[in-house]
Amino acid sequence: MASTLDLKEATDSQSSWDTLLPDFPKGPLCKYRKKASFNWKEMAVFLDGEDIIQLKNRIFSALENDPFFAHHPGEDLSHEKYQELTFLRCKRLFEYNFLTPQEITEKPLKILNMINCLGMYDWSPCLKYFLHCGVFAGTILSASKRFADFMKQIYSMEIFGCFALTELSHGTNTRGIRTTATFDSSTQEFIINTPDFEAAKFWVGNMGKNATHAVVYAQLYTPDGQCHGLHSFIVQIRDTKTLLPMPGVMVGDIGKKVGQNGLDNGFAMFHNVRIPKENILNVAGDVTAEGKYSSSFKDVKDRFSASLGSLSTGRVLITAMSVTNLKLALSIAIRFSATRHQFGPTDEEEIPVLEYQTQQWRLLPYLAAAYVLDYFSKSLFENFVEFNAGLLRKQRSQRQADLGREIHALSAASKPLSSWTAQQAAQECREACGGHGYLAIPLAAYKWLVCYLLRESDLKLNKEKQSGRSDFEAKNNCQVYYCRSLSIAFIEQTVLQRYHDYAHDPSVPSTLQPVLKNLSALYGLWSLSKHLAVLYQGGYVSGEQAGRFIQNAILELCYRLKDDAIALVDVFAPPDFILNSPIGKANGELYKNMWAEILQGSKALNRPSWWAEFCINKPVTGRLRSRL
Amino acid sequence: MASTLDLKEATDSQSSWDTLLPDFPKGPLCKYRKKASFNWKEMAVFLDGEDIIQLKNRIFSALENDPFFAHHPGEDLSHEKYQELTFLRCKRLFEYNFLTPQEITEKPLKILNMINCLGMYDWSPCLKYFLHCGVFAGTILSASKRFADFMKQIYSMEIFGCFALTELSHGTNTRGIRTTATFDSSTQEFIINTPDFEAAKFWVGNMGKNATHAVVYAQLYTPDGQCHGLHSFIVQIRDTKTLLPMPGVMVGDIGKKVGQNGLDNGFAMFHNVRIPKENILNVAGDVTAEGKYSSSFKDVKDRFSASLGSLSTGRVLITAMSVTNLKLALSIAIRFSATRHQFGPTDEEEIPVLEYQTQQWRLLPYLAAAYVLDYFSKSLFENFVEFNAGLLRKQRSQRQADLGREIHALSAASKPLSSWTAQQAAQECREACGGHGYLAIPLAAYKWLVCYLLRESDLKLNKEKQSGRSDFEAKNNCQVYYCRSLSIAFIEQTVLQRYHDYAHDPSVPSTLQPVLKNLSALYGLWSLSKHLAVLYQGGYVSGEQAGRFIQNAILELCYRLKDDAIALVDVFAPPDFILNSPIGKANGELYKNMWAEILQGSKALNRPSWWAEFCINKPVTGRLRSRL
Repeated sequence: MASTLDLKEATDSQSSWDTLLPDFPKGPLCKYRKKASFNWKEMAVFLDGEDIIQLKNRIFSALENDPFFAHHPGEDLSHEKYQELTFLRCKRLFEYNFLTPQEITEKPLKILNMINCLGMYDWSPCLKYFLHCGVFAGTILSASKRFADFMKQIYSMEIFGCFALTELSHGTNTRGIRTTATFDSSTQEFIINTPDFEAAKFWVGNMGKNATHAVVYAQLYTPDGQCHGLHSFIVQIRDTKTLLPMPGVMVGDIGKKVGQNGLDNGFAMFHNVRIPKENILNVAGDVTAEGKYSSSFKDVKDRFSASLGSLSTGRVLITAMSVTNLKLALSIAIRFSATRHQFGPTDEEEIPVLEYQTQQWRLLPYLAAAYVLDYFSKSLFENFVEFNAGLLRKQRSQRQADLGREIHALSAASKPLSSWTAQQAAQECREACGGHGYLAIPLAAYKWLVCYLLRESDLKLNKEKQSGRSDFEAKNNCQVYYCRSLSIAFIEQTVLQRYHDYAHDPSVPSTLQPVLKNLSALYGLWSLSKHLAVLYQGGYVSGEQAGRFIQNAILELCYRLKDDAIALVDVFAPPDFILNSPIGKANGELYKNMWAEILQGSKALNRPSWWAEFCINKPVTGRLRSRL
Repeated sequence: MASTLDLKEATDSQSSWDTLLPDFPKGPLCKYRKKASFNWKEMAVFLDGEDIIQLKNRIFSALENDPFFAHHPGEDLSHEKYQELTFLRCKRLFEYNFLTPQEITEKPLKILNMINCLGMYDWSPCLKYFLHCGVFAGTILSASKRFADFMKQIYSMEIFGCFALTELSHGTNTRGIRTTATFDSSTQEFIINTPDFEAAKFWVGNMGKNATHAVVYAQLYTPDGQCHGLHSFIVQIRDTKTLLPMPGVMVGDIGKKVGQNGLDNGFAMFHNVRIPKENILNVAGDVTAEGKYSSSFKDVKDRFSASLGSLSTGRVLITAMSVTNLKLALSIAIRFSATRHQFGPTDEEEIPVLEYQTQQWRLLPYLAAAYVLDYFSKSLFENFVEFNAGLLRKQRSQRQADLGREIHALSAASKPLSSWTAQQAAQECREACGGHGYLAIPLAAYKWLVCYLLRESDLKLNKEKQSGRSDFEAKNNCQVYYCRSLSIAFIEQTVLQRYHDYAHDPSVPSTLQPVLKNLSALYGLWSLSKHLAVLYQGGYVSGEQAGRFIQNAILELCYRLKDDAIALVDVFAPPDFILNSPIGKANGELYKNMWAEILQGSKALNRPSWWAEFCINKPVTGRLRSRL
């Protein structure tokens, strides 16, 4: 009886999975799909849950069915047109309103999934939307309830916002921000001023063409001339009826960037712009009508630290964006590698490049990284949601303070780890389109590594100080090989530990556990192998075999995961329309898809418009030599 | 008396240097320029010689003074317009004819310098020109004297050429090329045919829009049905009077790429296109009027190897291009780092980011690499010139055969080394815009490293074979950690040895030797440090101090070179017009230059054309939810 029930249950699951996740079209990738050790649909449902998959399906199919989001293969979009299209698509996102406040409250992780789905299509409209509804609105919402009317205008797009922190000559060093906000008690206004052009707000997303209001960070001065540090203010920068600049505001677009050109990044300078007293976002402090400063924090440094949690938004988001980009690059590169044949055991027979050890070793550790970092990114987002909920409740517990510092530290370290990983993976992927039994060892080794680097960094710092160097100089001299290595090893160990606990949890279906453990082991050993010299140097390992053991384990894990690679990609790859890559399509018909794409190019086969410049106006060789 | 003469000599040198290389404009970089340990003009003259510097000046100033080469800041060039402009600029290069055949014969290295100068401006017109006049013409020239008339048409641009080797499904594996050339003795013609769309010629530069003729690689078939391997043929693909495709040829543009979009990369398929018998490039073999095949090589493999030297052109060029790109990235990043201030010992004082150990460690090893690889690239080019001269003289000596194999091996290894170095440097540079006494040790260590990896690779290969694996499989299993590491260590050692010999040569002026030795040592130790784990693993070093010694030496060398960094960049940076970067200008006025550039953007301050889409057509939030 039990087996009949089990069978029925399995059939029911399979049928519900099939409804949520239809089969891929048949084609050259079937070979690898059949060899996979697990059911990719079961994996997808296990990782995301049915409601998240439904949300993804809803978003992906809305975009695919909406002409505003159509691709225009071979079309040469101008910068201006791309910005316009990005705005129109962003407006469309208001109309779809994919997540209601109730859905968000029930499962905040849906926000992250929505951002990632939209970003997979194109980061420009997604960021435009999120900078307005998430960052701009979120900053104001967490400040005070008195902005309720303002919030309504944000959500109905009566106004459009941006977050103006960085200045031309100051990005990282936020304490060095030089815009000023001076209180004038006679008019009950703040006067926002940019002292010189190096202090212009710069790089600000949405500011280039579109934003009507900005959250501006500035040094607050009271009428007695005293500076009270960095505070934020709502400043109107453009007229909402005409999009023309407000008096005293010079605002413009910084022009073309390396990427995300749909988003209008901008700059602004303020020439004694007056704003009402109420426009201060009084999280850290406020000013009385008489011009006296008051703060709930005693110390300037504490006040500064309190704002660190909110400033982590960008880093939490960049961690997620990097993982999403990593998934896209891998979807393309791994499907390509499984269908591209080159060389082979005989002159007649060629094999998929994925069968080559080098190709496996270049790509599969990044596949493992995508799974591990995806989990980390979600867990970091959940920490971040908890922290923000505390902010809204004006929570002042020890847990809240710890969470703020932890999110700052984790996001500051995971932002470079994930963006470097994604950048390196994208490079490997581009070039490439050209044993859980081991795991108890990388985790112990990692703990040793972090402790060793911590001790060494501390010793080095003390030595530097004892030799009479200033704090600043001593810290500077401990960066390379000490603190830098330490922070990298620390975040890798944290990321790995979280994933290891997740993959080994008894709730993981037995059908999925082996592959998840393989991914965990591969990521761990691969990351560890980059620190092999330190492990030898510090005496944690010695002899030839220790290194060989780790290297052989990596190659063995790559080999084991090779046949699962396509299914692992199928789990996270978006639909073909979203992925928008002829070499990464789910059907694996590499060359057919390439031809279809190339011949779509509007003028692929046309003679060039400038043909007469070649056929008639011939150059006279050397005619201009006399000018040299 | 002697000292008076010395003084006079020094004054004469200084004045001749000043004529060749004018001073840079005064500005924030002066501080570092004054701190340099050497005279950058003396270095430039020592490295290049006066005639090469004159050539560079001639090219750079011709481009700067020619409106065809003007920059259009903030302008949004369409793909089609960019291709047209690239063609017009290429035509202009015919008219300048920067190098006469006599100049080239006297000093072939001038070709490389010309390519690098043009490439610093923009690789697209440079490659268009070089693919035609260098690769296409060179291939035909080395084949036979019977193409003399054809050569004239090439140099007067009556025809335009491309080099069609790679196919859609075959790039690296050139033996797998599937285009066929079947001899028809009844008409004395070859019939060129593309069997299916996967065998289309693909990625071919100049083929997209412009080329009228192609050197096509195809499998030669005699009338008896026998295949004689890969040979090359001249095939006309477009009418020279109309630029319309020739009958039986489907030719087109592959569309937008990640870079070099001025160059028209294309594809072509041949439907039984007949060409005269004379159009075979009979380097490796030929066919008699009766259809009998004859070759001066007995073995098919030998015949294939003979063509390897010529196929190295691309790799030799990519090595040089990578070094040039490395120089551009460093010119920008190091000047930026010397002028960008961020944080500092006190809240009030901020220091240039170049003073940070991390920044030095991220950038200065690449600066050393630029000097070391530049020298290697030039010496490789000189080997290549010697090899090609031998080809033209039908040289069949042992030296010629060795040279062909050596150039193949060196260029195959230096292409990834230099392009990876340039790619990683560009990435570090982007992110960063955010002890010769030691040297006897990296060279000995490198020799050990290469020997160790050679022995280990050999052992591993034998072990794999003994365990019953096929040759192909055994080789595949020895790639990662063995042959791959070996080839990287081998090319690094070769590059370093060549530069070490150069820097230690008694002919180097004593004023320049210290900095050149520092560069040599930094590159050597930095490259070696990436193999530190192998040095420990194989027992070459042990204990904590060995690793620390190398790490401290790297940091010490970075620190020593920090004050020379700007002068070292001044040596190779092209004029501002060519570099075309507001943050890398020679005057170092970082923020002023950025503003000047941004405000040039034609519509930087304008309201967007689509303002009414925001101001009037407001979205109805959630209107489309019902569609989901």
